[in-house]
Amino acid sequence: MAEQPLAGTAPRVIVAGATGFAGALAADLLWRHPRFELAAVTGRSNHGRALDELYPRYRVPLAVQQLEPERLEGIDAAIVAYPHAAAAPTVAALHARGARVVDLSADFRLRSLSTYQHWYGEHPCPELMSEAVYGLTELHREQIAGAAIVANPGCYPTAAVLGLAPLARVGLISDVVVDAKQGVSGAGRGAGEETTHLSMAGENILPYKVAAHRHTPEIEEQLGLLGAELRVQFQAHLVPLDQGELASCYVTPSRGVSEEELRALYREAYLHEPFVEVAEAPPGTRDVFATNFCRVFAAADGHTGKLVVLSAIDNLWKGTSSQAIQNLNVMFDIPETEGLP
Amino acid sequence: MAEQPLAGTAPRVIVAGATGFAGALAADLLWRHPRFELAAVTGRSNHGRALDELYPRYRVPLAVQQLEPERLEGIDAAIVAYPHAAAAPTVAALHARGARVVDLSADFRLRSLSTYQHWYGEHPCPELMSEAVYGLTELHREQIAGAAIVANPGCYPTAAVLGLAPLARVGLISDVVVDAKQGVSGAGRGAGEETTHLSMAGENILPYKVAAHRHTPEIEEQLGLLGAELRVQFQAHLVPLDQGELASCYVTPSRGVSEEELRALYREAYLHEPFVEVAEAPPGTRDVFATNFCRVFAAADGHTGKLVVLSAIDNLWKGTSSQAIQNLNVMFDIPETEGLP
Amino acid sequence: MAEQPLAGTAPRVIVAGATGFAGALAADLLWRHPRFELAAVTGRSNHGRALDELYPRYRVPLAVQQLEPERLEGIDAAIVAYPHAAAAPTVAALHARGARVVDLSADFRLRSLSTYQHWYGEHPCPELMSEAVYGLTELHREQIAGAAIVANPGCYPTAAVLGLAPLARVGLISDVVVDAKQGVSGAGRGAGEETTHLSMAGENILPYKVAAHRHTPEIEEQLGLLGAELRVQFQAHLVPLDQGELASCYVTPSRGVSEEELRALYREAYLHEPFVEVAEAPPGTRDVFATNFCRVFAAADGHTGKLVVLSAIDNLWKGTSSQAIQNLNVMFDIPETEGLP
Amino acid sequence: MAEQPLAGTAPRVIVAGATGFAGALAADLLWRHPRFELAAVTGRSNHGRALDELYPRYRVPLAVQQLEPERLEGIDAAIVAYPHAAAAPTVAALHARGARVVDLSADFRLRSLSTYQHWYGEHPCPELMSEAVYGLTELHREQIAGAAIVANPGCYPTAAVLGLAPLARVGLISDVVVDAKQGVSGAGRGAGEETTHLSMAGENILPYKVAAHRHTPEIEEQLGLLGAELRVQFQAHLVPLDQGELASCYVTPSRGVSEEELRALYREAYLHEPFVEVAEAPPGTRDVFATNFCRVFAAADGHTGKLVVLSAIDNLWKGTSSQAIQNLNVMFDIPETEGLP
Repeated sequence: MAEQPLAGTAPRVIVAGATGFAGALAADLLWRHPRFELAAVTGRSNHGRALDELYPRYRVPLAVQQLEPERLEGIDAAIVAYPHAAAAPTVAALHARGARVVDLSADFRLRSLSTYQHWYGEHPCPELMSEAVYGLTELHREQIAGAAIVANPGCYPTAAVLGLAPLARVGLISDVVVDAKQGVSGAGRGAGEETTHLSMAGENILPYKVAAHRHTPEIEEQLGLLGAELRVQFQAHLVPLDQGELASCYVTPSRGVSEEELRALYREAYLHEPFVEVAEAPPGTRDVFATNFCRVFAAADGHTGKLVVLSAIDNLWKGTSSQAIQNLNVMFDIPETEGLP
Repeated sequence: MAEQPLAGTAPRVIVAGATGFAGALAADLLWRHPRFELAAVTGRSNHGRALDELYPRYRVPLAVQQLEPERLEGIDAAIVAYPHAAAAPTVAALHARGARVVDLSADFRLRSLSTYQHWYGEHPCPELMSEAVYGLTELHREQIAGAAIVANPGCYPTAAVLGLAPLARVGLISDVVVDAKQGVSGAGRGAGEETTHLSMAGENILPYKVAAHRHTPEIEEQLGLLGAELRVQFQAHLVPLDQGELASCYVTPSRGVSEEELRALYREAYLHEPFVEVAEAPPGTRDVFATNFCRVFAAADGHTGKLVVLSAIDNLWKGTSSQAIQNLNVMFDIPETEGLP
Repeated sequence: MAEQPLAGTAPRVIVAGATGFAGALAADLLWRHPRFELAAVTGRSNHGRALDELYPRYRVPLAVQQLEPERLEGIDAAIVAYPHAAAAPTVAALHARGARVVDLSADFRLRSLSTYQHWYGEHPCPELMSEAVYGLTELHREQIAGAAIVANPGCYPTAAVLGLAPLARVGLISDVVVDAKQGVSGAGRGAGEETTHLSMAGENILPYKVAAHRHTPEIEEQLGLLGAELRVQFQAHLVPLDQGELASCYVTPSRGVSEEELRALYREAYLHEPFVEVAEAPPGTRDVFATNFCRVFAAADGHTGKLVVLSAIDNLWKGTSSQAIQNLNVMFDIPETEGLP
Repeated sequence: MAEQPLAGTAPRVIVAGATGFAGALAADLLWRHPRFELAAVTGRSNHGRALDELYPRYRVPLAVQQLEPERLEGIDAAIVAYPHAAAAPTVAALHARGARVVDLSADFRLRSLSTYQHWYGEHPCPELMSEAVYGLTELHREQIAGAAIVANPGCYPTAAVLGLAPLARVGLISDVVVDAKQGVSGAGRGAGEETTHLSMAGENILPYKVAAHRHTPEIEEQLGLLGAELRVQFQAHLVPLDQGELASCYVTPSRGVSEEELRALYREAYLHEPFVEVAEAPPGTRDVFATNFCRVFAAADGHTGKLVVLSAIDNLWKGTSSQAIQNLNVMFDIPETEGLP
């Protein structure tokens, strides 16, 4: 397995930041993708080590290089898997070299500069914000097709917005609480042993960033674009698994909604989406483990009058790396499901 | 360790239903309790097998017997760990023999017969409902002291009501969503492999009983007794751990509440409670693993105006078996913390 | 995804016993296989329920049927995933109808009837034993190609024999201890809550069948065929994960072996095997999770003079279901790696 | 719980290195111990932070201090929980101030300087080696009682030597393989995310330090003291749990041994030991979780003639911190089981 089964004229893609969880999975998916060539993997550490030594579970034999954008040649696209704020300058450098970029960080996800500044501080490259398209494929497919920069969504917004979009579009959300739970891969490789050591994260349910999670404005902006202008109560929790995420959404509807109307609304909304499954029963995250699927279930609570929407993804796949491949497929006019088992 | 280190004149207690998770832990806590004598353990199966063979982690060498209430003599109290509906007749029989009972089932938790009938159907022993006191020790300590039957709370209501009581008492709850997560011991020993097999429950986040959990009326009734008459949006989830439970409560307050006021309210409410800890940081369930503690944290969200209350317990301990011991201590005028490490 | 992407003239295969872990995975692999048609799934329970309802993680929409061999038509092959002893009569019935069979049970794994009788008791269909070929593909590929019945190996023998074969062939094994560890999927779906409930299996390391595991004769017989006639000390353990198995083999060699000779021996042995990876570092089972790979590592211990061989597989994949597909590929002259991601 | 329930004249003990897993648990055990006073907790980082902030699961409100041995006064004993090589100078400094020391590192475990040098390199304080007693309480109780320095055993040697001692004493071990499995707390808090991150350690079985583990000479030296001079094949594995360790020992006996003789030998050997349980069935590590027990099971394999000994401990308790308390109890003439629930 020392050679990638690629087509000679396939678009050449690099992964910058391939030593983290998200970048490594993106590299693996590209390596096995029949229509892209994984041209290089770069990282900010571990130069010279093979990626399959760092991640024996993936079988990508390429050595990790230092990223030198000025020396890159013949690269068609890049996936940038850097932390927030570190990503933007790299995205800009790759963009300047003519590569189309899917950025996994939060740097280009928000449309509003002032919202960005409120939650993150100064933006490293505000001039590029207008170039970027929000990469929730199901909502912005057409713009993504022609985009120079795609801002891949956060995993929490992916689950929450796909879960709430059918209600937002028809003006049904009056108020909403999003309680999200996630496996520890979501904290990243370098999150520190207080959070991710199995002896700390195991046998634990840990809420974090109470009343202050930076994914909130991203969810609010996307729901706003769909017509639902409101403040979202969002809370994240870590639970003891590797990959998996559930957003439990509690909606106070603007009017009474019957179970039948609700089910029909969701079936209709996602009828032609290859990666959104409307479930007949409450989904577990195991149902979407290591896939690009989002599985959604909606129910009306006759006792309270509220709506309950459950949206399950694999945070590392649909929530991050496989959605990046889905976007690359769209950007290069490749069938959207290609290379996504 | 073949003999229990008990005092000769200690109250004699039996555990009925000691082969399940809750009963076995209750038996273990009583076996090691310096002030009670574990007189017998009974079960509906496994007669003759020693409890420490069924549960090698506990060191209770008593053999499981068949319960024959009419043959019991000199029993002061019983913990009944039977499933719902099966419990009530056994409680009645033990009560008739003069034993004081802590019932772990839902059979006597509700005060309102019509609410019981609405959620559970016919009540097996409605005539005993007025004898029962709701066993959330922190709320009903004085009544518990003199009660003939104590209805031990469900684990979800324990976490939720202890988390919300300080707000309910001062009329601050206008609306509330309770999103609860729990380890699989909460599903019980005989829940079936679809739910509890490590190959199904592991690497999973599983919502269940959507818009219809029977713990809802118990929470509503207790909040109502504190002055908060409202319908509670409650949703339960199983996560891959053994013991641990977090209730994340999202409160729309009836008026604006500052962070300082909120913190003071909680500190004050639980200042003298030996088993409720008001935390300075969001609690993980690991912080209360294998203890009778409930750890509560409250925060005001300036962005949404809502209040977030996080309440962590061990579902099998404070949520079930150790709270039963806490109640027994109160019932027999023993210091409330005795035998609860 | 309501239709299987199959070729019209593809061999038609059924899975008998598709409601267990092994059968369900085999069905999923066949459903997604580009060269086989999954013609039906049968089970001894859950008739009429769709397999993707029983296993939402798999997307196989076929309904579970009752197996009626006499009514089967146009079936080319079957995978039988029944418990030991229950399998043989079903294998015989399918064989009589002209279907080629891969049997996942132990019923046809041993060549010696007396060995079978010693460990299992009476054989249900001794007359068919000579028809069966042992399905460790790497060892018996040519015979498998023409076999009517393939006895798929146990997961422990798969890991152990692939780990030890290079030494056995050259007469290097004087004595051997095999200490095997496995995730709880290996215990099966219906193993009972004492073994597989997350509250029992979690946070546990559990040795079982001490000094008496039925996989022992299977390992001994296969090593014997390679020239190593000896008694194997075998011990199995359950550890808290879902899928994964490691056989740690401690070999007293018949003569001194240098590290270089050892490494060369293994590299050479598996140079052309698509599914055996000779590792440069000790393999974790996570490296082969959800794959058909066996990853092997061998080292000479200068301190003791012994050899240490570590062999990692996914017990449910290479140890069971994906190896069945590998065998079916060989039986139907399809490239051996087809449909095995 | 702001005050420790200590006796005024209790020995005053400090824990040096209380920010790691072992030190933190030792501090917690001392804090709750009825006969010792936890005088201070020190660490090489996190100065000024309360231990119950670093480890919310423990309720030790003391602030972490920098260790300054020269300024210590009135300290009777110390537990030193430092990494190997860093420990010895601290042990020496504390010893010089008159404190009796239990050292959790490997620095003083070996009697032979040349063996130490072979496996570890130069010894930091060879002059103190003769002061140290090996702290496997069950083997060296009398020497421990009077020792100035107790070298607490490694967790693997604790399980292995307690498992093998009854055979070693009577000359029954001709050859032995020890295959040990352990939860990730054994890797320590700072082991790095490649080993301990739940996304790496979860769903994994990972052998490590193949053919070269430093616990080997410790086991060999202790077995040698009991009369069994031999080289031990030792192999360690990490499995996905927090606390728990099983040593599976495969003994080639020097003569035939019947099951009855074997059982009697073990029963007899540990009849009066408060913390060693001879089990009737193979022990799981869950049976000894969070206890100071070692549970041992021995069986004769009629098929191979070998003996199988299974020895289960909690690596962090009996394997490390609670055994340190057991030793302190012995050193200060306190009942050996005191403070060890």
